[in-house]
Amino acid sequence: MDFGSDNQSGVSPRILQALVDACSGTAASYGNDPWTGRAESAIAHAFEHDLRAFFVATGTAANCLALSALVQPWDAVLCHRQAHVATDESTAPEFFTGGARLLPIATDSGKITAEALQQTLQRLPDAPPHSVRPAALSLTQATENGLVYTPDELRALTTLAHQHGLHVHMDGARFANAVATLGCTPADLTAKAGIDVLSLGASKNGALAAEAVVFFNTALARDFELRRKRAGQLLSKGRLFGAQFCAWLQDDHWLDLARHANTAALQLAGILQAHPDIRLAWPVQANEVFVVMPKPLLERLLADGVRCYDWYADSLPPSLVLDAQDVPARFVTSWTTGTEDLRALHDLLR
Amino acid sequence: MDFGSDNQSGVSPRILQALVDACSGTAASYGNDPWTGRAESAIAHAFEHDLRAFFVATGTAANCLALSALVQPWDAVLCHRQAHVATDESTAPEFFTGGARLLPIATDSGKITAEALQQTLQRLPDAPPHSVRPAALSLTQATENGLVYTPDELRALTTLAHQHGLHVHMDGARFANAVATLGCTPADLTAKAGIDVLSLGASKNGALAAEAVVFFNTALARDFELRRKRAGQLLSKGRLFGAQFCAWLQDDHWLDLARHANTAALQLAGILQAHPDIRLAWPVQANEVFVVMPKPLLERLLADGVRCYDWYADSLPPSLVLDAQDVPARFVTSWTTGTEDLRALHDLLR
Amino acid sequence: MDFGSDNQSGVSPRILQALVDACSGTAASYGNDPWTGRAESAIAHAFEHDLRAFFVATGTAANCLALSALVQPWDAVLCHRQAHVATDESTAPEFFTGGARLLPIATDSGKITAEALQQTLQRLPDAPPHSVRPAALSLTQATENGLVYTPDELRALTTLAHQHGLHVHMDGARFANAVATLGCTPADLTAKAGIDVLSLGASKNGALAAEAVVFFNTALARDFELRRKRAGQLLSKGRLFGAQFCAWLQDDHWLDLARHANTAALQLAGILQAHPDIRLAWPVQANEVFVVMPKPLLERLLADGVRCYDWYADSLPPSLVLDAQDVPARFVTSWTTGTEDLRALHDLLR
Amino acid sequence: MDFGSDNQSGVSPRILQALVDACSGTAASYGNDPWTGRAESAIAHAFEHDLRAFFVATGTAANCLALSALVQPWDAVLCHRQAHVATDESTAPEFFTGGARLLPIATDSGKITAEALQQTLQRLPDAPPHSVRPAALSLTQATENGLVYTPDELRALTTLAHQHGLHVHMDGARFANAVATLGCTPADLTAKAGIDVLSLGASKNGALAAEAVVFFNTALARDFELRRKRAGQLLSKGRLFGAQFCAWLQDDHWLDLARHANTAALQLAGILQAHPDIRLAWPVQANEVFVVMPKPLLERLLADGVRCYDWYADSLPPSLVLDAQDVPARFVTSWTTGTEDLRALHDLLR
Repeated sequence: MDFGSDNQSGVSPRILQALVDACSGTAASYGNDPWTGRAESAIAHAFEHDLRAFFVATGTAANCLALSALVQPWDAVLCHRQAHVATDESTAPEFFTGGARLLPIATDSGKITAEALQQTLQRLPDAPPHSVRPAALSLTQATENGLVYTPDELRALTTLAHQHGLHVHMDGARFANAVATLGCTPADLTAKAGIDVLSLGASKNGALAAEAVVFFNTALARDFELRRKRAGQLLSKGRLFGAQFCAWLQDDHWLDLARHANTAALQLAGILQAHPDIRLAWPVQANEVFVVMPKPLLERLLADGVRCYDWYADSLPPSLVLDAQDVPARFVTSWTTGTEDLRALHDLLR
Repeated sequence: MDFGSDNQSGVSPRILQALVDACSGTAASYGNDPWTGRAESAIAHAFEHDLRAFFVATGTAANCLALSALVQPWDAVLCHRQAHVATDESTAPEFFTGGARLLPIATDSGKITAEALQQTLQRLPDAPPHSVRPAALSLTQATENGLVYTPDELRALTTLAHQHGLHVHMDGARFANAVATLGCTPADLTAKAGIDVLSLGASKNGALAAEAVVFFNTALARDFELRRKRAGQLLSKGRLFGAQFCAWLQDDHWLDLARHANTAALQLAGILQAHPDIRLAWPVQANEVFVVMPKPLLERLLADGVRCYDWYADSLPPSLVLDAQDVPARFVTSWTTGTEDLRALHDLLR
Repeated sequence: MDFGSDNQSGVSPRILQALVDACSGTAASYGNDPWTGRAESAIAHAFEHDLRAFFVATGTAANCLALSALVQPWDAVLCHRQAHVATDESTAPEFFTGGARLLPIATDSGKITAEALQQTLQRLPDAPPHSVRPAALSLTQATENGLVYTPDELRALTTLAHQHGLHVHMDGARFANAVATLGCTPADLTAKAGIDVLSLGASKNGALAAEAVVFFNTALARDFELRRKRAGQLLSKGRLFGAQFCAWLQDDHWLDLARHANTAALQLAGILQAHPDIRLAWPVQANEVFVVMPKPLLERLLADGVRCYDWYADSLPPSLVLDAQDVPARFVTSWTTGTEDLRALHDLLR
Repeated sequence: MDFGSDNQSGVSPRILQALVDACSGTAASYGNDPWTGRAESAIAHAFEHDLRAFFVATGTAANCLALSALVQPWDAVLCHRQAHVATDESTAPEFFTGGARLLPIATDSGKITAEALQQTLQRLPDAPPHSVRPAALSLTQATENGLVYTPDELRALTTLAHQHGLHVHMDGARFANAVATLGCTPADLTAKAGIDVLSLGASKNGALAAEAVVFFNTALARDFELRRKRAGQLLSKGRLFGAQFCAWLQDDHWLDLARHANTAALQLAGILQAHPDIRLAWPVQANEVFVVMPKPLLERLLADGVRCYDWYADSLPPSLVLDAQDVPARFVTSWTTGTEDLRALHDLLR
């Protein structure tokens, strides 16, 4: 009954096989191998756009290298207060950007709204050179609360951002889950919605370690290969990333994996909600389920071998009235979540 | 006939199998998986020392993160003029150290001698806060010319360095090859020789992507896990590195791989030297063979499918008198270099 | 009627004369002149503490160099949301600290309370290496709202901070005004109250350009002269700063200047409050007066030659109910504020 | 008999008077005062070019902020091995540029020749993203050996640099001395010679603390005011710099001061050379005199109250054959060097 995190799941057999195949012979180094080029083409095909894709080892590197291409060291990046870059990536944003500042936006839902963005832009002091200059907006798809932005919501945000001279970055650590939920195309959520650069994460969705920085606005990719090298993110055996991405994208494997995780999350939510003491904190729109339940119940589940995490109280909807003993908890599904795990939890909760 | 670079070779079957095994199930993330811990223990066992080991994705990250633990941003790192950190890692040393300076030492052999180090330390202006303060020495084992430092040479260098308050780093991208050549223990070349921190590279010697920063002076490892995270080098699925290192070290597999490469290099050197127009530039002490030959001959070899690189004229021994058409070339062997390749080259040169 | 800012006022004749005297002959450079040493001693005498003082050109440099001595690049500095370092110093905090993060605390008054600090420390995620590590607290004395911290308030804050392993910095751009208001000694507000390092600003209080970074916790001053040089803040003719600080401190001249400004602020507040449409936003505890008044009235004052600034709505006390046309405004007095200016404003408002 | 350094001399009465005049009343802050604008105009007039000038507190800040506008963090700056930025400014170049690298060029004279630049550019590895990319050339006028570049020499260097995509910076800490020596116009040595940005130093030539970053290539000044603020170099009372520069430039006062220093240097050289045991190391082309003399003689002079510095052996011309006891020494003159000092030295040496 492992609902700890999708980054703890194993590697999809198809991806693993591709990796094994790519490891056998000699290949050119530093991304000049055949897989790397094919992976970039496969991304371009999947996103229906002329683009540049650069592969790196971690989501933190992908996000922060991407941001470094959008801002100067005296600029600011607007992001949600709960964004991964703001809460879980140490001071990597500052390190990679040469000292730019994150300016967190607080909204109840964890989604930035056009209204909240507008208010923030108006409220920020505009007194250069003293005040920092907002130069980028970073959105997370799906968000830290497991909600998704619709193409219309994204378009409204990117339009406003571009009007104010901000470039737009999307942290897509769970991008595939958002695509699977919305039933739209990858392009609908990125290039067509005005996204300039996407951190496309495969590691949480079937891969071993594979992240891409994808520039739809290719002018911003200038010197990016120099940035990546300087940051120690250029692998000599680049086929590690190339082979994974090729297999991940082939025949929409990535979306199949994400659909599996999303479906499991909906089933999981049903099982949890069936318990009279468990309430859903947020609608389930990707592969994460956020609930509140009495602390003793959570402790019992953990003792019985359920893996999940207690979560941050300030991530809950303000409208949710907690009972005295209620605590928040996060359950995550992945492409490996099986019916046995779900059934076992179901039985445990009955 | 591929003698291009050891970073272009494939992955050892034993390491690949270990990787496949580690990819199947769920495991704790961020290095809390079983493989990562076992790999650190295996390194401690192999180096016969209490130590801390941190895994990262690239040699550049390993070297530059290691250096960042040894110096302040207003300090300098002494290294050889030809060192990889000085010539092939962009400005990553400056990036990771927060702006410390490399001070290159020039010697003919590519090896830093105690005498050269002593002269450099005496020559450097000592006028703080105006001048930079030497705070670390970085040695490469085996060097860029394919030569190795003996334990005695290392001990002389580290003693002098420590007397002057410098910590000592070793870039061990080809450390296994040096161990295999010298027939001593890994400890003889590191902890027992006064090395404080080692970049231990497996990627050029049978692994896919696996580098370790190994602290023998564990006091210097303070906050290193924060450094690594901030640098985007903490993988969620840390088993990628852990599984590779476990298999690499088990039953001295790493030394077997290195011995194979070294032996092949000696055979290759013999084949090359048998040609009347080819002369060896440096003794062969690891898995690289540096020669000079007439340019037309090199061009013919390349045209006939031999993969090797023309090389830097300033890496040659000053005592070597070049003929008019002579150019330098580098041939590299690896654990995959086979007798067919060697035989084919032999036939070609006859 | 100039109430724009204390950084626009001229230079005290005594300080100017000292500067002129110091400029005539030859003197050792880089702070080895007699004035620099005397100034450090004078600060130690005034603050009744063994200390190290380093002089720099701007308040931004003083604050941010001071912070850089307290935190590592992966750490965080807690400060008030309205603090000068957070709102008016570009990304200099990130630049000088090598990328540490400011974590703003919001309170209504602009003063950080021990309760707010406690809550913040409890609320912050403690998940290294993912989350940032709070390592310093920065307090502003007097605050951006013109309020002062009492010795007891400071002691409560520094005790809590030290218990959590945080060093404490004080931004003392208007420190003299706080001393003058409270009638205590400089030591009561710094070393005796647990402050580790103080940015002591003279530029707003009679000097031309003179800021000091004062370490009461002298262990933190290690390598600070190297930091300062590297930051381009070591003047060749250090007597510029030394001579100013000597004259500023001599015979409590700095406190006389501050008392003048504070008294003028109280008189100014009286004059403003006498107008039926003007209300005080904050008690006057230093040399700044914050009021709200109908926009047309403010516009008339500006048109009539009064220099003051409209101010940020979010700096007002939440309890203050604004009338429809009310806008906030800031008036600042200095050692040069004369009775003519005050009388002229009085007449204008009658 | 003070020949220690021109940065130890006092302040010219005309400049000091201007400073006093500027300190009396209220003035807009942060460079919006009248003096700052006038100073920029005065520089434009003196250099006969449309330009942007930004004032900072130190030569280190001027040089390194200027370089930061010319290169990216993964680029390199070519400069002479003896350049002040390379030897006397700690790691400030790395700090301000975000980690770019200095690549020193060694020539015997301390002047970079077009030939040496050409050879360096050819010799540097061109293997991006691994190797660093030369993006700027920094020249020192007058050089560290007291020699000057002629307009023709500069033109040859800047033409070659621009052909290779490098911007050109001039460290003009002693620029006025070079102008005075060559008898050409300031424009001849800068804009007309292809210089993109100049660090114009007044502190060594009559001012107290006044340095300007002067952009002839104004496109490079984009965001420079944000850079300067972030670096803690934007003074609130900017009139400090503005007033000094206005007086320094007015009626060619700066050139008169420099001419005085240069003339004194020639006289000093004559006095030194008249001694049979003292030999000139370099021609005297500015305000510095480099000699070699027996160590006992130097010690006697120092004991007799002569202030000068022993100097670096590796700054001497290779053609100069040293006698057994010979040591190098540096004597510097300034606008304050008087006939009494010269006569006293003359008498001492007789």
